[in-house]
Amino acid sequence: MIDATLPRMRYAMVGGGHGAFIGAVHRHAIALDGLAELAAGALSATPEKALASGRALGLADAGNHASWQALLEAELKRPAEERVDAVVIVTPTDSHFPIAHAFADAGFNVVCDKPLVHTGAQAEALVETVSARGTVFGVTYNYTGYPMVRQAREMVRSGALGAIRKVVVEYNQGWLATALEATGNKQAGWRTDPARSGIAGALGDIGSHAENLVSAVTGLAIEELVADLGALVPGRALDDDASILLRFAGGARGVLVASQINAGLENDLRLRVSGEDGTLEWRQEEPNRLVHHRRDGPMQILTRASPWLGESARRAGRIPPGHPEGFIEAFANVYRGVFADIRARRNGVAADPLDADYPTVADGARGVRFIECAVASSAGHRWLRFP
Amino acid sequence: MIDATLPRMRYAMVGGGHGAFIGAVHRHAIALDGLAELAAGALSATPEKALASGRALGLADAGNHASWQALLEAELKRPAEERVDAVVIVTPTDSHFPIAHAFADAGFNVVCDKPLVHTGAQAEALVETVSARGTVFGVTYNYTGYPMVRQAREMVRSGALGAIRKVVVEYNQGWLATALEATGNKQAGWRTDPARSGIAGALGDIGSHAENLVSAVTGLAIEELVADLGALVPGRALDDDASILLRFAGGARGVLVASQINAGLENDLRLRVSGEDGTLEWRQEEPNRLVHHRRDGPMQILTRASPWLGESARRAGRIPPGHPEGFIEAFANVYRGVFADIRARRNGVAADPLDADYPTVADGARGVRFIECAVASSAGHRWLRFP
Amino acid sequence: MIDATLPRMRYAMVGGGHGAFIGAVHRHAIALDGLAELAAGALSATPEKALASGRALGLADAGNHASWQALLEAELKRPAEERVDAVVIVTPTDSHFPIAHAFADAGFNVVCDKPLVHTGAQAEALVETVSARGTVFGVTYNYTGYPMVRQAREMVRSGALGAIRKVVVEYNQGWLATALEATGNKQAGWRTDPARSGIAGALGDIGSHAENLVSAVTGLAIEELVADLGALVPGRALDDDASILLRFAGGARGVLVASQINAGLENDLRLRVSGEDGTLEWRQEEPNRLVHHRRDGPMQILTRASPWLGESARRAGRIPPGHPEGFIEAFANVYRGVFADIRARRNGVAADPLDADYPTVADGARGVRFIECAVASSAGHRWLRFP
Amino acid sequence: MIDATLPRMRYAMVGGGHGAFIGAVHRHAIALDGLAELAAGALSATPEKALASGRALGLADAGNHASWQALLEAELKRPAEERVDAVVIVTPTDSHFPIAHAFADAGFNVVCDKPLVHTGAQAEALVETVSARGTVFGVTYNYTGYPMVRQAREMVRSGALGAIRKVVVEYNQGWLATALEATGNKQAGWRTDPARSGIAGALGDIGSHAENLVSAVTGLAIEELVADLGALVPGRALDDDASILLRFAGGARGVLVASQINAGLENDLRLRVSGEDGTLEWRQEEPNRLVHHRRDGPMQILTRASPWLGESARRAGRIPPGHPEGFIEAFANVYRGVFADIRARRNGVAADPLDADYPTVADGARGVRFIECAVASSAGHRWLRFP
Repeated sequence: MIDATLPRMRYAMVGGGHGAFIGAVHRHAIALDGLAELAAGALSATPEKALASGRALGLADAGNHASWQALLEAELKRPAEERVDAVVIVTPTDSHFPIAHAFADAGFNVVCDKPLVHTGAQAEALVETVSARGTVFGVTYNYTGYPMVRQAREMVRSGALGAIRKVVVEYNQGWLATALEATGNKQAGWRTDPARSGIAGALGDIGSHAENLVSAVTGLAIEELVADLGALVPGRALDDDASILLRFAGGARGVLVASQINAGLENDLRLRVSGEDGTLEWRQEEPNRLVHHRRDGPMQILTRASPWLGESARRAGRIPPGHPEGFIEAFANVYRGVFADIRARRNGVAADPLDADYPTVADGARGVRFIECAVASSAGHRWLRFP
Repeated sequence: MIDATLPRMRYAMVGGGHGAFIGAVHRHAIALDGLAELAAGALSATPEKALASGRALGLADAGNHASWQALLEAELKRPAEERVDAVVIVTPTDSHFPIAHAFADAGFNVVCDKPLVHTGAQAEALVETVSARGTVFGVTYNYTGYPMVRQAREMVRSGALGAIRKVVVEYNQGWLATALEATGNKQAGWRTDPARSGIAGALGDIGSHAENLVSAVTGLAIEELVADLGALVPGRALDDDASILLRFAGGARGVLVASQINAGLENDLRLRVSGEDGTLEWRQEEPNRLVHHRRDGPMQILTRASPWLGESARRAGRIPPGHPEGFIEAFANVYRGVFADIRARRNGVAADPLDADYPTVADGARGVRFIECAVASSAGHRWLRFP
Repeated sequence: MIDATLPRMRYAMVGGGHGAFIGAVHRHAIALDGLAELAAGALSATPEKALASGRALGLADAGNHASWQALLEAELKRPAEERVDAVVIVTPTDSHFPIAHAFADAGFNVVCDKPLVHTGAQAEALVETVSARGTVFGVTYNYTGYPMVRQAREMVRSGALGAIRKVVVEYNQGWLATALEATGNKQAGWRTDPARSGIAGALGDIGSHAENLVSAVTGLAIEELVADLGALVPGRALDDDASILLRFAGGARGVLVASQINAGLENDLRLRVSGEDGTLEWRQEEPNRLVHHRRDGPMQILTRASPWLGESARRAGRIPPGHPEGFIEAFANVYRGVFADIRARRNGVAADPLDADYPTVADGARGVRFIECAVASSAGHRWLRFP
Repeated sequence: MIDATLPRMRYAMVGGGHGAFIGAVHRHAIALDGLAELAAGALSATPEKALASGRALGLADAGNHASWQALLEAELKRPAEERVDAVVIVTPTDSHFPIAHAFADAGFNVVCDKPLVHTGAQAEALVETVSARGTVFGVTYNYTGYPMVRQAREMVRSGALGAIRKVVVEYNQGWLATALEATGNKQAGWRTDPARSGIAGALGDIGSHAENLVSAVTGLAIEELVADLGALVPGRALDDDASILLRFAGGARGVLVASQINAGLENDLRLRVSGEDGTLEWRQEEPNRLVHHRRDGPMQILTRASPWLGESARRAGRIPPGHPEGFIEAFANVYRGVFADIRARRNGVAADPLDADYPTVADGARGVRFIECAVASSAGHRWLRFP
């Protein structure tokens, strides 16, 4: 909370300079609770742009770097206690691995955007490094920061729905319904470019959020899947539409849809989880509500901050019921978790898991394997075991 | 309309006696517009029950029969001009083929519940007979009777969404989330019994509606599919959950979900169709609205009976905008279509297709092939071409 | 229900001929359950139109009359047991009193549209006549026929909300946002004409529904009110917009809004009732849901036909949960109640009040007094006691 | 935006210490965009609590004061260029006037919570002082900061609805449905206490927001009103329920409801504005949508950040469509406006009105007169002219 008597931390950002959407979101999210401030950066892969962006954001020259390598070098020259508390990586996916690995290997706490890296091998290497260094590594699967997602997680995990039988998750957008990348749009450009996005398009960009949402809420492990990826806008190199059937350990079934060619849709992420005793439904575009269909009673609509929520959901809010919180607040909750974990480790204590509540490098790695498996299934036009 | 100066027709019903849900729905639907009245029947497979049900419904003894064979025989003894105008078949699926075939073959117009029959071979035989006799044969895929479904169909077919790229249809219920069939529940009993329902459970009962809805609205032909059917309630012989990926001729992709184990859900049939220029969403539980997400303008919500609807949707309503119509009205629209076609043929004219608007035996046959293909795909755990 | 073993009744209709909206609604509603059939009529105030409409509706010449007086005369000439079971009056308001009074006085059961009559004195006379003759007299405040309105009534009356403190009812439409009456529109013509509609426009046409809804659901008696009526479309003689503050016996407060100039709205009747322990919300345009905000638990959404509804709501439905029922079904429920009462009285028994559930002449009379009081308050620009 | 190359301002806060809800909201809102930081404060009326709260918030001793008088004195001792850029007042209403007047009179820019002061005379004095000093004075009617409220304002003001005829605004909560003030609840305590809240309870606390919302969106001037205020929870000294009929200059009519005893409701502020050509509906609990019912076309739902919004709405957002923004973001928009105006004045230029977009002392003063007039109308049980 903004009122906490916590010393303000300092962070560095890699990427996210002028014109980048997601960098500003990270900065708003970090600012919201006043937990940390931007102290250094290498804000673009283009040196001049990096420096200009840094100046625009008020970075002092000492912290404003032309490249992530320069940032790393400069930080390492500083006494350990003066280094930034965390490095936030918001570049296109192709550079996640070298940057994240270098900083983690040098002992920095890292927050990295999703999808984590391009290959399962990279992901495994990163997990090992983080484990070896004992640092904090958060992945901004930000949707798990929504209070009502945490409420869903708590209800599912505590058995409020009985055994889970069916999960349907959809993440549909419309912004790539035309060949936007051909118009010079920066966001569309790198997301449809295999060189920068890897083997997957919509599947990697938003399907990975969907996979993580299912995993976070249900804890179910995917055992097998069959995927159908399509590049439905002519001329596109990567998938812009993905549909996947899932089988989970224990027998539950699932469907995952991720598509960026649903013309007119905005950011329609929705989850439905059914168990023996009830069904939960949540939609990102109305995030303060969680619909609970019950087998043995009327449908209930749970609202953010109401007194009958579980502890994890209640901790994730700032203001009373009926006062909507949104995307930035949810994003900020991921950062709250990361900073709580950094603080706890620094103090040599185990963090309260309800405070240090954020997606980790292991979640990111599983997401990368999911992408690889789905791409292979689609290419082979058949069911595949999930490794 | 109830005001039409049309001579009232006469119909016979097979099945639908005391305790049957769907028989009463058919009778309400036929009564609503005053187009026809019940003149004969064989209302149960149990002779005494059939006769008792007939008496309860006010059938004169001459029209009240102990079996469908007796009904057929009695009708055939009457002069052609005194026979019933249509025979409505609302029995469990296993008896659809013999009854429907016998009446169609004898030259009667038939309305049969879905799924049409148990096998593709039966379906083909029925199509041939109907074609040979030149009679009317309607299948009560009643959801296509909703005005806003017809509006969606008209918009998709006229190109309002551009080329169609993605279709997601879900039909979820919760009433079979427990082993209701073990409690003596009649509806659950026959729907989970292979002897009476054939090779499919939820897929046949409600998945067939979903398939027909997609076909009716988009006209797209399925080319290939991979299905995952599960009997998720322990001990159940037929699927209660089905998830299917679809590929359509022309390149569009689809997802079809049909499940009866979503505890707490009621009758949640929903369709989403995306094209180059927009996306339509419709939900059966709020049937008077059609959401139109547009790529190049604000989302619009079209409402039943509003002046900017197409002709097919406007003809399908009875009362002004803002006065909700529901399930029975939609069902009645299917009957309007059937009766309009019967009347036109009797008058030796071609029916206005916007009047004679109802699912035919060909739709029913395609539905049966869909069920067979999906069951085979699931059993083989692989993609299959749709015949 | 359509399956009931009930002898079909016979009714006569006054008004409701060609081009009348509401006459057709009454006929659909009566047909839906098969409880009665049209046996006679005087379907227009214009003799030729009356006869032509009757022929179009299939009336035999013997039952097809050029005027209501002729209808009355002809019926009285028939033996009592051959007379129609009920007379349905769907004319503009100005003729309600003479027609309804004449038929009631002659011992006929009557169903009359709302508002009942033009003046409190007429209403009182009608109440006395009906009481003296011991006949059935229903007023088609049809919105009280919705199952979820009956559920709200049962919950409020049984104390589920605790003592009621605040009631807000709004009935907003947009169809009179322009001077539609100047275009020759028949519906707009008589509703904006003092000669045919009396002293009130929107207040009488739809405000009376709102008043009745509040009274039916809460049972609260209005003690005092201040009204502000406006003719906001230039040149209109009667109010097209009404806003009223209410004080109820026992201390509850209320607001009633009725307006026909909310451009773009369709038929937006909505009710909110707050008590010590919770708040109910219902909207006519989504009639199958009742929202229950609870002080001590999550919001619940009750749905039509679900097992946890009260008896009165469950009896008012025909089909399972999730299968929407609409306006015609609600209207038909009023007729079910009227016919149940007629049947019971004929059999010399007291009707089960949950069956004979319909608005009576007393409700209609209170509605007329409400209109008079509101008009006087607005004219005097002050609070008035409600008589 | 968080990326702006703007020098960060410094603010002082009066009130808002430990346990105060609204102080934290102001701090989150200011932090979100990184526009200013807390540099001084007198955070409670109780000296020890003030100092402890300041320490908890990280205030240096030099800026941490035991009283607002001490804060003022200390600031005045500093060179003008080192004083805080703005003073934020978030105390209970009774102390607004002395504090706000003292700081404004001393030349400080002020942001004050609503309702502004207790009496019209105080409000007038404040307006005069602010005018004389030429300082900035914002009032945190925060709901006008929502992007879709600004869209509504732009549409209404630009004539998209034609002449406005009817306005209905409701602000309903349920948190005071019981005598919460008797339990020691701090928020309930001062809001139901005439000594601290003045002559009005719910009317002042939330009715003032409703009045301001109507005024901001429509620009209509109230000419006359009749109010009915009630203290419906036994023993309460101030109104907890208010219903008011409004007449506006130009002939439009209105209804304003503000109630805190709607058990189970959260923060249900909703506005409906109808004009000749359409109707807008907005609800605070779903703030990212604006429903536009059109007389001559389908209903449209406008969403935050979509490209077809007006300039004022687009400037009020941070992130793309489909990514919900909420209460804190709207609150922050008011602060953006205040800081933009301070910056412009400091630079000696006229602020762009779309940037310096915030409720002023004049809005606050009109709100106070509204409260006084409504209280007098209710006490007199009659219509009153609005001064």
